Amino acid sequence: MAFSSHVASRLEEQAIELPSWAFGNSGTRFKVFGTAGTPRDPFEKIADAAQVNRYTGLSPSVALHIPWDKVDDYAVLRKHAEDLGVSLGTINSNTFQDDVYKLGSLTHRDEKVRRQAIDHHLECIDIMDETGSRDLKIWLADGTNYGGQDDMRGRQDRLAESLREIYARIGEHQRLVLEYKIFEPAFYHMDVPDWGTSYAQVAALGERATVCLDTGHHAPSTNIEFIVMQLLRLGKLGSFDFNSRNYADDDLIVGAADPFQLFRIIVEVLRGGGYGKDGDTAFMLDQCHNIEDKIPGQIRSVLNVQEMTARALLLDRDALDAAQAAGDVLGAHSVFMDAFYTDVRADLAAWREERGLPADPMKAFAESGYLASIADERVGGVQAGWGA
Amino acid sequence: MAFSSHVASRLEEQAIELPSWAFGNSGTRFKVFGTAGTPRDPFEKIADAAQVNRYTGLSPSVALHIPWDKVDDYAVLRKHAEDLGVSLGTINSNTFQDDVYKLGSLTHRDEKVRRQAIDHHLECIDIMDETGSRDLKIWLADGTNYGGQDDMRGRQDRLAESLREIYARIGEHQRLVLEYKIFEPAFYHMDVPDWGTSYAQVAALGERATVCLDTGHHAPSTNIEFIVMQLLRLGKLGSFDFNSRNYADDDLIVGAADPFQLFRIIVEVLRGGGYGKDGDTAFMLDQCHNIEDKIPGQIRSVLNVQEMTARALLLDRDALDAAQAAGDVLGAHSVFMDAFYTDVRADLAAWREERGLPADPMKAFAESGYLASIADERVGGVQAGWGA
Amino acid sequence: MAFSSHVASRLEEQAIELPSWAFGNSGTRFKVFGTAGTPRDPFEKIADAAQVNRYTGLSPSVALHIPWDKVDDYAVLRKHAEDLGVSLGTINSNTFQDDVYKLGSLTHRDEKVRRQAIDHHLECIDIMDETGSRDLKIWLADGTNYGGQDDMRGRQDRLAESLREIYARIGEHQRLVLEYKIFEPAFYHMDVPDWGTSYAQVAALGERATVCLDTGHHAPSTNIEFIVMQLLRLGKLGSFDFNSRNYADDDLIVGAADPFQLFRIIVEVLRGGGYGKDGDTAFMLDQCHNIEDKIPGQIRSVLNVQEMTARALLLDRDALDAAQAAGDVLGAHSVFMDAFYTDVRADLAAWREERGLPADPMKAFAESGYLASIADERVGGVQAGWGA
Amino acid sequence: MAFSSHVASRLEEQAIELPSWAFGNSGTRFKVFGTAGTPRDPFEKIADAAQVNRYTGLSPSVALHIPWDKVDDYAVLRKHAEDLGVSLGTINSNTFQDDVYKLGSLTHRDEKVRRQAIDHHLECIDIMDETGSRDLKIWLADGTNYGGQDDMRGRQDRLAESLREIYARIGEHQRLVLEYKIFEPAFYHMDVPDWGTSYAQVAALGERATVCLDTGHHAPSTNIEFIVMQLLRLGKLGSFDFNSRNYADDDLIVGAADPFQLFRIIVEVLRGGGYGKDGDTAFMLDQCHNIEDKIPGQIRSVLNVQEMTARALLLDRDALDAAQAAGDVLGAHSVFMDAFYTDVRADLAAWREERGLPADPMKAFAESGYLASIADERVGGVQAGWGA
Repeated sequence: MAFSSHVASRLEEQAIELPSWAFGNSGTRFKVFGTAGTPRDPFEKIADAAQVNRYTGLSPSVALHIPWDKVDDYAVLRKHAEDLGVSLGTINSNTFQDDVYKLGSLTHRDEKVRRQAIDHHLECIDIMDETGSRDLKIWLADGTNYGGQDDMRGRQDRLAESLREIYARIGEHQRLVLEYKIFEPAFYHMDVPDWGTSYAQVAALGERATVCLDTGHHAPSTNIEFIVMQLLRLGKLGSFDFNSRNYADDDLIVGAADPFQLFRIIVEVLRGGGYGKDGDTAFMLDQCHNIEDKIPGQIRSVLNVQEMTARALLLDRDALDAAQAAGDVLGAHSVFMDAFYTDVRADLAAWREERGLPADPMKAFAESGYLASIADERVGGVQAGWGA
Repeated sequence: MAFSSHVASRLEEQAIELPSWAFGNSGTRFKVFGTAGTPRDPFEKIADAAQVNRYTGLSPSVALHIPWDKVDDYAVLRKHAEDLGVSLGTINSNTFQDDVYKLGSLTHRDEKVRRQAIDHHLECIDIMDETGSRDLKIWLADGTNYGGQDDMRGRQDRLAESLREIYARIGEHQRLVLEYKIFEPAFYHMDVPDWGTSYAQVAALGERATVCLDTGHHAPSTNIEFIVMQLLRLGKLGSFDFNSRNYADDDLIVGAADPFQLFRIIVEVLRGGGYGKDGDTAFMLDQCHNIEDKIPGQIRSVLNVQEMTARALLLDRDALDAAQAAGDVLGAHSVFMDAFYTDVRADLAAWREERGLPADPMKAFAESGYLASIADERVGGVQAGWGA
Repeated sequence: MAFSSHVASRLEEQAIELPSWAFGNSGTRFKVFGTAGTPRDPFEKIADAAQVNRYTGLSPSVALHIPWDKVDDYAVLRKHAEDLGVSLGTINSNTFQDDVYKLGSLTHRDEKVRRQAIDHHLECIDIMDETGSRDLKIWLADGTNYGGQDDMRGRQDRLAESLREIYARIGEHQRLVLEYKIFEPAFYHMDVPDWGTSYAQVAALGERATVCLDTGHHAPSTNIEFIVMQLLRLGKLGSFDFNSRNYADDDLIVGAADPFQLFRIIVEVLRGGGYGKDGDTAFMLDQCHNIEDKIPGQIRSVLNVQEMTARALLLDRDALDAAQAAGDVLGAHSVFMDAFYTDVRADLAAWREERGLPADPMKAFAESGYLASIADERVGGVQAGWGA
Repeated sequence: MAFSSHVASRLEEQAIELPSWAFGNSGTRFKVFGTAGTPRDPFEKIADAAQVNRYTGLSPSVALHIPWDKVDDYAVLRKHAEDLGVSLGTINSNTFQDDVYKLGSLTHRDEKVRRQAIDHHLECIDIMDETGSRDLKIWLADGTNYGGQDDMRGRQDRLAESLREIYARIGEHQRLVLEYKIFEPAFYHMDVPDWGTSYAQVAALGERATVCLDTGHHAPSTNIEFIVMQLLRLGKLGSFDFNSRNYADDDLIVGAADPFQLFRIIVEVLRGGGYGKDGDTAFMLDQCHNIEDKIPGQIRSVLNVQEMTARALLLDRDALDAAQAAGDVLGAHSVFMDAFYTDVRADLAAWREERGLPADPMKAFAESGYLASIADERVGGVQAGWGA
């Protein structure tokens, strides 16, 4: 079996944004392990990200984190990226690493702290104007650790107010995307803990405000594809942060912990019109390569998303619909599993070769010697991580 | 310390609705244990419920489940209740025990099944008109067990349509309350699994549609008081189904598994204007007394809610606000815990006696001999349970 | 690719015991849906079970539940089974459906209740002698619902004592297998909640006492294959109860909720010498077909286990070991995933045909008309379920 | 009510060891917030720890973490501690912060890495000989992030071997205590994830090897007091690491997230003979004061443990036993809750004053001006944290 022209062409619509910070060091509170060759600045991060796109053709853009990726001249950074065949994507704000944000940022009781956090977001939008980015992604570490520590309602109201001011500055062709997370770094409550809160907040803002669904940010046993369906139905699924998890926000390689879940998610994206040219849902990675090599880790990740997309595209929706309509529980499930169980790897290899890409991107990259070369070249300086 | 007049009078505003089905037999899929004296019909259930109110003064109304509590003449049932000092409250619909609902009810693909389910709700509203009930509570067992079994999006759309038709029939002074539940009886997806879905659905209906929060219907580690805060903020917290849990929807006595959680919930209810005369949030129990005596189980439950309400009322909100404003994490938490750790039992006993109630309702009921008398009298017939 | 002779022959070692009760009705506390053709007695259950083996060749034995499957003459039942090509397998005791066991069985404070529960197990062993069964499987519903309800330590000590008496009666060629479960039907504590407790109890008994691992009986996010590894290492993995889950003990079709987990489990079984002729770990299903057809549900289940076994057998252990030894995180993971992603369905179809089995057992069974015939024939009587 | 002499005297047996690292900075992978006055070396940590004991009389010893607390001369450190009224307690090893341990330590495939990890433990025992410590606590970060990354069985066998060598060096009056943790920093499997594994490993070593139960290291919904009961029954509960959690290993102040759970745990410790002079179970804190002041955070923590111990001591065991024996579910639960709901704060204040301690240790410490003085004095140098 080779892919039908329909599947082949739909696969061409796929684009998965890479996070610049995936190429820096990351870890746990216990230890951050460094690796030779780790980028020391945004330019080197983008160079690494461009490698992923070079071997897979799947990742034409790179998201930035501000202030980690601040540069003097974004036009230069943009040119650097374009020269390497990628563009600058989503701008991620950061209000969790300044001492002033210890007890909150956009939700803080102190107007001065809120002002600083709002101004940071306005600055991010300025940067978006320069980088040509469409999306401002807001993930807040805001929350509390102890019952009674602060008034959750007051914080929620202040959040609404702060977002209103930021949203007012969002351009016609830009979007505000609000991410939610059940816990960490706050351990009693987070101010945006679930999709319902994120939805209620962005619905109050307006059309260009949407929700970001990070696949690792839910309570155990949450049915994530249901949320995908619901947010698409409500017209509010702005973007994905893909990764995978076994316990908490483990930030493992997407598809590594539960490939079937990734399949189900993509089936719903296709079903709900969120894929490729159908819609406006951005696919993005947000992972931590704590112990594995970073560039191969990102290549593996985009390939995992592509493989599951191919399987989801192979789903026989007519047969599925017929079995569902007949109330044939096992029959419908069987049609569904048939798509998941189909081994698409050989067909994807052929599809890649037809498009001038290596059949096996992992192998091609490994043979390129790039990792050894950056280990040699990037000597001295401070390796990038969370904080730089 | 005795209660201030403020606390004493606020405690008088408390009313906790009892579910008629708490007096029938319940259990797990493994076994339902019967008890001598279990009611055989709605009249006997209401008689038992009235005992709870008689000894506590806390439960002036009883919720009915249709068709479990169907009677020929609701005026007679209403009179029976009023004679016993209680009124008829929320009407709960039931679309999970007819064979036709095996694969869904309001969400079913088959228009005839949806019709039947909608008509059942219209009938419930007719009953509400007769019983004088304000709330129609809808909890749906609808969902699927296997990936691909049915199309979640289509089901959600049909749900919206069905609810629209039901809502159109809701009277001026009535409300539709939509309950959510993460799982059980469906094990892959539920059609109304979370507060976000319930909120999105009722927001689309109108002002008289609200959400019911059952404290046992969430994923592990969900911060429930946050949802309470959010729904009150959004003006949509219609009612509570109180119970407690250690694992899943265990339906244990409210406050038994985690009393501090119950305290935190009630603090938020007070904070958000959902308590007593301040608002429109109904307090109700929904529990299963699988192994303990049912009437004492209900008495224990309403007392637990009252005790935590008293503690929450004792919270020094000025001191709390000051500590919060000062960013004093431990100080604010300490003010919060001070209220929780205060032993209110003696003051509540005095409060009860001042109002002509027994100081110790559990003991007074035990000494009344009521359990022995119903065990003697209620011989023959079929004990009520889930299904009758 | 066709299977190597090694893989083909190892697949022949596979035997998956079926539970007689999977052919009766099951459901949740909300509703048990019946189906036309459901067996009314153990003979009909075994007839249905034999169908699964007829079309798959995978399930040569049937487990019985006592007293659900009590018959006057087990020799007759045994002959009936053998005539249909299957044997009688594990005997499962039941101490959760008599009123006397409301607060416990082998752990009960009342010596008379314990006596009755112990005697029930001795009777089960008598039955084993007649049926030729090797394993006595003990799953206890014992536990409590409320903190302080009973003394957990005393119960644990009485459990040890009761098991000692039962174990003393276990024959030379028989085994006692103790199953654990985190919760349900008890909602505060279970007396055998985890593998550690089961292990400590059976280790105290002796060599012929082992642990049963039910894949649905763990806390969320438990790494089950780790427990498989550990119990095999300790020589105590007596048997599996296979099923799958998304939330609690959902008892769905094995492999339906998370096929990759099933793969990982079987990889560990192979690694630890628990598969086929290598060891003594029994594979068994324990599921509830609440809404799907039962016989096809069982066929689907054994096929799922077989498919994942084939994938696990295809794992290139040399390549895996080399990558692991090199500390190549992504490389080792990749070898592992390669086996999982291999589509074995066509090869399994061929393997079946070579052995005189239908290439597609689901289709062959559907075309046999068996379901229609039992629906016609089994009219009248009481359908079997949990309780009969 | 004042405490009976029995309760008063049992309270005197209480000793809660403090972790030196609780006085250094800690945080999450997102940010570690520093505070003025944070200790720069083990001497200053011990000085801070001594403050906790000075105001509470509850924490006569301080645990050290090696190499974080390495000093040139432990006799000097010991003298320093004794001068401040405290002793040096448990020695905690650390094999998670050297680059060499990226893929494991005692379980590593590479013999050289294992050698280094074993030698580190032998060095810890040498230190114990100098500090006079009884316990060597081993918590391993060992584990993997991806399925197939390493062979879990081989790792378990190597763990057993490494522990054997360490245990052989443990002195007559010393103990090896093995801690377990479900996840973090490893996200697919941990090599010692649960009490069963820790128990199986220490049981194989010998009498002086026991288990450490950290209250934050379990899967959601685990009944921890059951494990306390079981480990005491098996004679293997060596020590507690107390803290509290809402989600994962949140390391919050013990008793802050769920005070009732702490009560239940201490009830089982008393029941099983693990408290004070009855047994050998060490009470210790292991927490992170990410946003709150550290010394008051520790004072609050030991007071929380003391308050719940007082309540547990007040439990009317005769009444409880009578209700349990009668099968009186609600009655037994009620006796249990009566103890929990008793407000012991005034009696504890009196108890403290009788013993020359401040009635309100939090207030007394706050008024002492110690925090301001260390903020003034400790200028320059590097604040201690995880890693120093």
